[in-house]
Amino acid sequence: MPTMNAPELIEFLGRFFPQSRPERYQIEYVDDRRLVFRYQANHDDLRPGDTVSGPTLMALADLGMYLAVLAAIGPVALAVTTNLNINFLRKPPAGDLVVETLILKLGRQLAVGEVFIRSGDAPDPISHATVTYSIPPNR
Amino acid sequence: MPTMNAPELIEFLGRFFPQSRPERYQIEYVDDRRLVFRYQANHDDLRPGDTVSGPTLMALADLGMYLAVLAAIGPVALAVTTNLNINFLRKPPAGDLVVETLILKLGRQLAVGEVFIRSGDAPDPISHATVTYSIPPNR
Amino acid sequence: MPTMNAPELIEFLGRFFPQSRPERYQIEYVDDRRLVFRYQANHDDLRPGDTVSGPTLMALADLGMYLAVLAAIGPVALAVTTNLNINFLRKPPAGDLVVETLILKLGRQLAVGEVFIRSGDAPDPISHATVTYSIPPNR
Amino acid sequence: MPTMNAPELIEFLGRFFPQSRPERYQIEYVDDRRLVFRYQANHDDLRPGDTVSGPTLMALADLGMYLAVLAAIGPVALAVTTNLNINFLRKPPAGDLVVETLILKLGRQLAVGEVFIRSGDAPDPISHATVTYSIPPNR
Repeated sequence: MPTMNAPELIEFLGRFFPQSRPERYQIEYVDDRRLVFRYQANHDDLRPGDTVSGPTLMALADLGMYLAVLAAIGPVALAVTTNLNINFLRKPPAGDLVVETLILKLGRQLAVGEVFIRSGDAPDPISHATVTYSIPPNR
Repeated sequence: MPTMNAPELIEFLGRFFPQSRPERYQIEYVDDRRLVFRYQANHDDLRPGDTVSGPTLMALADLGMYLAVLAAIGPVALAVTTNLNINFLRKPPAGDLVVETLILKLGRQLAVGEVFIRSGDAPDPISHATVTYSIPPNR
Repeated sequence: MPTMNAPELIEFLGRFFPQSRPERYQIEYVDDRRLVFRYQANHDDLRPGDTVSGPTLMALADLGMYLAVLAAIGPVALAVTTNLNINFLRKPPAGDLVVETLILKLGRQLAVGEVFIRSGDAPDPISHATVTYSIPPNR
Repeated sequence: MPTMNAPELIEFLGRFFPQSRPERYQIEYVDDRRLVFRYQANHDDLRPGDTVSGPTLMALADLGMYLAVLAAIGPVALAVTTNLNINFLRKPPAGDLVVETLILKLGRQLAVGEVFIRSGDAPDPISHATVTYSIPPNR
């Protein structure tokens, strides 16, 4: 069981990160180890050739891990990314992106996860990231 | 000597990546191994506590390496990032960010560089990234 | 179906990399996307506290991806690692290590995979790596 | 001024990590932010084509950061690597390797540095790594 469910996560994002425009994210699955959301890339996310830009994919990977950490440990606005490593694997066409995060370790100080981004329902990932978050001590 | 100078780089960005709003970037130094630009973080780049968001820093690291590759080899719109690894080192306060890219290797197929992002003129980096670009064969 | 099976992989290692002492590796599963081998850590692999050293885990991750690439594309002695990113997640006790590699992308020039290292049959990984190999053009 | 000087570092390695055979490392420079050592690759470190193996380079990068952390904060046997990212840039010929570590951040819990490995006195690095160490709380 996750500590925060999908509506609570979206509400939390809207309150603390209104810039992230949470109305654009649709959480499709969440438990305490795995979170999947869907995002529709828009014009600002595209680069020449109508592929989704690298920065958009990096922001999605970072957000995926953030939401997965929140779902696991509850509302901790001040968890911060310490490391993100991403491999861009395939050209991401315009359209829906599905972001799947799996937590690999949830420690007292650090949480580590991996994030697959897929194009719609195609099986092969267009990018894969590993992300580390630092969890604040006093919570 | 770089293959493209600062005005040519900004003009190229404006033509191929209008979304990146190149008027916000000020290239302060460029040669064929090193490029430095300055960027003023704005409201959209901030997160709670008025620190610059991780996605903004990742986008700047990616752009720094892209500009350094362009400066070294000329206008190649289709160079694409294959890997980016970033460590977030210190809280980035709102204000000017200075992005310094050093090319570590410029091969036929791959270019690898490192990117330091500093807050204004403070010496310690707030983040450090290594970035790999794939260079298209037919150019 | 893999291009090389388990005995062929071990025989290849012994011929080209005798230093790797392939008699210490036991391939438990191989297809063209996934490879699992078992390795028994010995005295040289340990550091204070009888945990397996980081360099041993990095060498195993690199070898896992190399074997998975060989299994997928055949005997290519000159495939070389271009990038390896590893997160150390849990203390690795002395004893058997199980190394599972999944290929995320097999391109013409680059292969990218992820490698989980587990301690015996415990489910949680002690380390997770992503590894990129460059594949030589003339094969 | 470093907290530990070159002879103290080598003595410490010999006591806690006799497997690392510290007699093979020659520390050429050390202060509290930068450490340079020289290592002569031997037969076990080579792979086909007489290039230095990836695992040897990864072990050297890890050791470089460990020594730099020790030099900065004193004898902490239990500092452990949490993340290592390495790019292999050029073929490393047999012979002397020079390993230069620069500390990017020395926090209470985490230390982050970058490590350049060069072949003898050639200026271009053959590999570049970023390494994160976790520093134990009770010291």
